[in-house]
Amino acid sequence: MNILITNDDGIRADGIIELAKELAKTHKVYVVAPDTQRSATGHAITIHEPIMVNKEYIDDNICAYSISGTPADCVKIGIEALFKDINIDMVLSGINNGPNLGTDVIYSGTVSAAIEGFIQNKPSIAFSLNEFNVSKEIYSQVSKYASKIVNDIKDKLNILNDCILNVNIPNGEVKGTKITRLGERKYENVLEERISPHGKRYFWIGGQVKELEQENDSDIAAIEEGYITITPVNIDMTNNKKIDILKNELL
Amino acid sequence: MNILITNDDGIRADGIIELAKELAKTHKVYVVAPDTQRSATGHAITIHEPIMVNKEYIDDNICAYSISGTPADCVKIGIEALFKDINIDMVLSGINNGPNLGTDVIYSGTVSAAIEGFIQNKPSIAFSLNEFNVSKEIYSQVSKYASKIVNDIKDKLNILNDCILNVNIPNGEVKGTKITRLGERKYENVLEERISPHGKRYFWIGGQVKELEQENDSDIAAIEEGYITITPVNIDMTNNKKIDILKNELL
Repeated sequence: MNILITNDDGIRADGIIELAKELAKTHKVYVVAPDTQRSATGHAITIHEPIMVNKEYIDDNICAYSISGTPADCVKIGIEALFKDINIDMVLSGINNGPNLGTDVIYSGTVSAAIEGFIQNKPSIAFSLNEFNVSKEIYSQVSKYASKIVNDIKDKLNILNDCILNVNIPNGEVKGTKITRLGERKYENVLEERISPHGKRYFWIGGQVKELEQENDSDIAAIEEGYITITPVNIDMTNNKKIDILKNELL
Repeated sequence: MNILITNDDGIRADGIIELAKELAKTHKVYVVAPDTQRSATGHAITIHEPIMVNKEYIDDNICAYSISGTPADCVKIGIEALFKDINIDMVLSGINNGPNLGTDVIYSGTVSAAIEGFIQNKPSIAFSLNEFNVSKEIYSQVSKYASKIVNDIKDKLNILNDCILNVNIPNGEVKGTKITRLGERKYENVLEERISPHGKRYFWIGGQVKELEQENDSDIAAIEEGYITITPVNIDMTNNKKIDILKNELL
């Protein structure tokens, strides 16, 4: 296959380099990634300024660019411009430095890149590692799991006709794979207020994960048990169940 | 009610000023908006830099701040910090300069602010005007429709327990209101390639809306006919229909 790979941690992140190298063993790999860290950008696109493009080197058999844009920009520019003469078969995003589970998916640049892949009519998967700041060697190991999922699904890509897959991989021993739902994730002490040396009020967004009871089939519960989680994520955000209720209540 | 209002066009946009003034006639209004234009930011949050806060003036009876953050940041900081001692009853976002219809919702800072309102456990509505760069007087007119929707729903806010409302309002004569689904919107000629004076390749994201046949009940079709569209938008993005299929195909 021709596979476009992007991420939100930027072109120099080990997660994308190891994923690209692993996939390049059996596929033709094209990379477009942000030139800097772009995590928590959600589905932002860059429309108020131009997007600069740089040729990058990862490996002799991988064609790579970085851009001054977001993960969603990377997919748009990869498919519609830089590689428009190549028939891209799949879009992969990751491997992200840290998990993208439950409610957090909405903030995730990694997942948004996969959603942009879907908008571009390509089967798309987001990969994240459930651990921060690990070594290159661990990403190399984890890339083999990602590659296996790609190869397992490559002959049935029509499964991805109305969703993307959000995959999270545990660090360490893997017990197996579970198909999951997005769990609920909340944070506490999210905002830290400070005063600048010039007397101005400002905030940092931070916070700790709040322990919530999780449904058994949630991605958050399954990864804690040591499973790779595969969650199908919707593209059409319409809440169909509410349509008739709203017709009765508001019209 | 105590109503928090934000937007993605920034604190000086007529859309938010007129909406805040209209709602302040019957409710207590609190405003936190980005200090500059932040459209197409999706659900980005600011975690790699601090968020500065400025006191702003809109009207004597409206308490307002601008921040150096995204629409989702505004809601987080409004509810968890600036107005944490006030029991906010609803979050409104808008009125946006231009529509947020169909597929575009995923890129929308306006809609993301409402989704962040939901994440903060508040009933939330996003409002957009289906026209760009109109006068203050038109926003003042359109704000009355927005205010009517808020007042129609205020005694049945439990409808918004698993969705937000995405409301688009036509410019000009309004034929009525329809409850709709998100339509499909695609663009053509999205990327324009240029060369800088220094010989560097760069892109602008732009493009024109592609005419697509729309289902009758889509927001795109209904607003073209002159209706206010109210679309319930999901928060849980799990594609439940695909879970059993994936279990059969991948495990």
